[in-house]
Amino acid sequence: MSHALALAARGLGRTWPNPAVGCVIVNAGRIVGRGWTQPTGRPHAERMALDQAGHAARGATAYVTLEPCAHHGKTSPCADALIAAGITRVVSAQTDPDPRVSGRGHAMLRAAGISLTEGLCEAQARTLQAGFLKRVTKGLPYTTLKLAATLDGRIATATGESRWITGPAARRAVHAMRLTHDAVLTSSATARADDPDLTARDIGASHQPLRILLDATLKHSPDSRLGRTAAQHPVWLLHTAAAPAAARSAWQATRTRLIEIPASGPHLNLTEAFRSLASEGLTRILIEAGGSLAAALIRADLIDELALFTAGALIGAEGTAVLGPLGLTALSDAPRPVLIAQETHGQDILTRWRF
Amino acid sequence: MSHALALAARGLGRTWPNPAVGCVIVNAGRIVGRGWTQPTGRPHAERMALDQAGHAARGATAYVTLEPCAHHGKTSPCADALIAAGITRVVSAQTDPDPRVSGRGHAMLRAAGISLTEGLCEAQARTLQAGFLKRVTKGLPYTTLKLAATLDGRIATATGESRWITGPAARRAVHAMRLTHDAVLTSSATARADDPDLTARDIGASHQPLRILLDATLKHSPDSRLGRTAAQHPVWLLHTAAAPAAARSAWQATRTRLIEIPASGPHLNLTEAFRSLASEGLTRILIEAGGSLAAALIRADLIDELALFTAGALIGAEGTAVLGPLGLTALSDAPRPVLIAQETHGQDILTRWRF
Repeated sequence: MSHALALAARGLGRTWPNPAVGCVIVNAGRIVGRGWTQPTGRPHAERMALDQAGHAARGATAYVTLEPCAHHGKTSPCADALIAAGITRVVSAQTDPDPRVSGRGHAMLRAAGISLTEGLCEAQARTLQAGFLKRVTKGLPYTTLKLAATLDGRIATATGESRWITGPAARRAVHAMRLTHDAVLTSSATARADDPDLTARDIGASHQPLRILLDATLKHSPDSRLGRTAAQHPVWLLHTAAAPAAARSAWQATRTRLIEIPASGPHLNLTEAFRSLASEGLTRILIEAGGSLAAALIRADLIDELALFTAGALIGAEGTAVLGPLGLTALSDAPRPVLIAQETHGQDILTRWRF
Repeated sequence: MSHALALAARGLGRTWPNPAVGCVIVNAGRIVGRGWTQPTGRPHAERMALDQAGHAARGATAYVTLEPCAHHGKTSPCADALIAAGITRVVSAQTDPDPRVSGRGHAMLRAAGISLTEGLCEAQARTLQAGFLKRVTKGLPYTTLKLAATLDGRIATATGESRWITGPAARRAVHAMRLTHDAVLTSSATARADDPDLTARDIGASHQPLRILLDATLKHSPDSRLGRTAAQHPVWLLHTAAAPAAARSAWQATRTRLIEIPASGPHLNLTEAFRSLASEGLTRILIEAGGSLAAALIRADLIDELALFTAGALIGAEGTAVLGPLGLTALSDAPRPVLIAQETHGQDILTRWRF
């Protein structure tokens, strides 16, 4: 199952709206098939592993990180495929919460006389498939907020100088992080300040994440890096009804997809924005934004994980804060995410925290 | 030598103005004597180890973390004692930069026909004796700045609530850190805000560090915890000529020692303050203060090491910053200390950085 989980992780960022699943088929102690959900979600992991196993699947055990599907979608159900291939035992990490499956895949296997073990490495599988699980059960994407700051929590000097606070190894790690998310999201303020293109560079990427800009009134220029590259790699622009018609047309001309979101005062309603992204099938979103959007998302309880790069530098109180106002009334109300990982990237430290 | 270094570390915080030295005597492959500089600096490590070894010192090898002393102080020189005991080989980690020794100890051993190896584990020994070395070579103490902040670099909420940001394990680690320093130093602002007593509690401490308050005009009350406990454990109060006579008398009545320091505008001249503390014999000072003094000390290049406790919490931009203004004109001028250690204390992370 550990191997199946590692295979599943290969699909992260590329399988949406489907989950990134892994499958290992073992016959008489030998691995005869290995599969993982392929880009865009098809073929499924089980299909790939069965194809690899061929006749050796007969009498074999299949380890799957998620309950095999039971519904007829673009292809026939994986549960049927496992039965037809002569698999005699299935070990599954968890039940698929998708209402079209939800236990029916496991039931089909049992009805066919297959020996079934459920819940092996369930916690790891749930962590890996957190994006898919959250989309299906809550109608929201799993979000990672990436922040990079000095030891004293600053992201720029008083004059706005911010290149570079972290080193090249940390920046490469961010680009790799972009690839394991379905989309990278930023704010209008950050886009206008930094003109980022939010692609994954210098790490031999074979695909690019979807790029999303939150820009209520379309202040960012279509002649920006995002606008100029939208025809090449998709860009989605979320705005409110207050966006001027001329700006909408100009952005549409770049082949950016525009999505209108209800407003909350002068801003986008963030929860509505994220619901809309989940309904479009997005499961994992990396947020790279400044202190204001970061704080607003934390206040709205829309952040699942924080990835904080800390550079061994000090800027002092005149610098720009990594996080905007949280509006706490008492210290006991402060969000206290839990440390889940610590890494070193060059001279910088990455700590990951789950809310 | 590793064992001698570990023994030496036992003395940290208790041997000033002397260095914390370790000594191991080995005869025919067996450890026959172990010593470390005793509280207040006497007896020296070599004396203690020789006393333990007795006759077994004859023909033995002595490992010492610092060149044995050569001058007649309160006791006779350790170099003489090693020779008299019949030690035939000495392995020393480093030369003592104290002008009264500075190679003379090693020379005495050589002249007596003792085989001498110098510089074993020198880097570790220099780190351990950084306080003594800095006092003797630069006339300044080695300083550790302790800071504790949230992930976004805040130490209190907008309303000043700061208890507790870090957990009990981190607070215990701070108390242990106090014991490995000769003194704990704080600012008038922090003393007035928190009324700390700066003692080491709840860890079975058998001694207390000297406590030092920087308070240019003696604004802190003698009826504070520091004032009330000054008769029990020493407190030194550094002030300028601007301190009112009445406040001086009131503090003197608590048995606090008052030291006048030249002013720099309305403040103490920090470099003069630290020079004065080194001339009093202090080698290692832990600084526990707020953002203003911390920033002023960094600007004055008076900090050797940063011990940063990071709590997995977020307060937001309204909170009090961990560090005051550094007055940087460019990001390239930002201090970039080097990571030297990472520890976890309960839910909190301690990172140590050397400037």
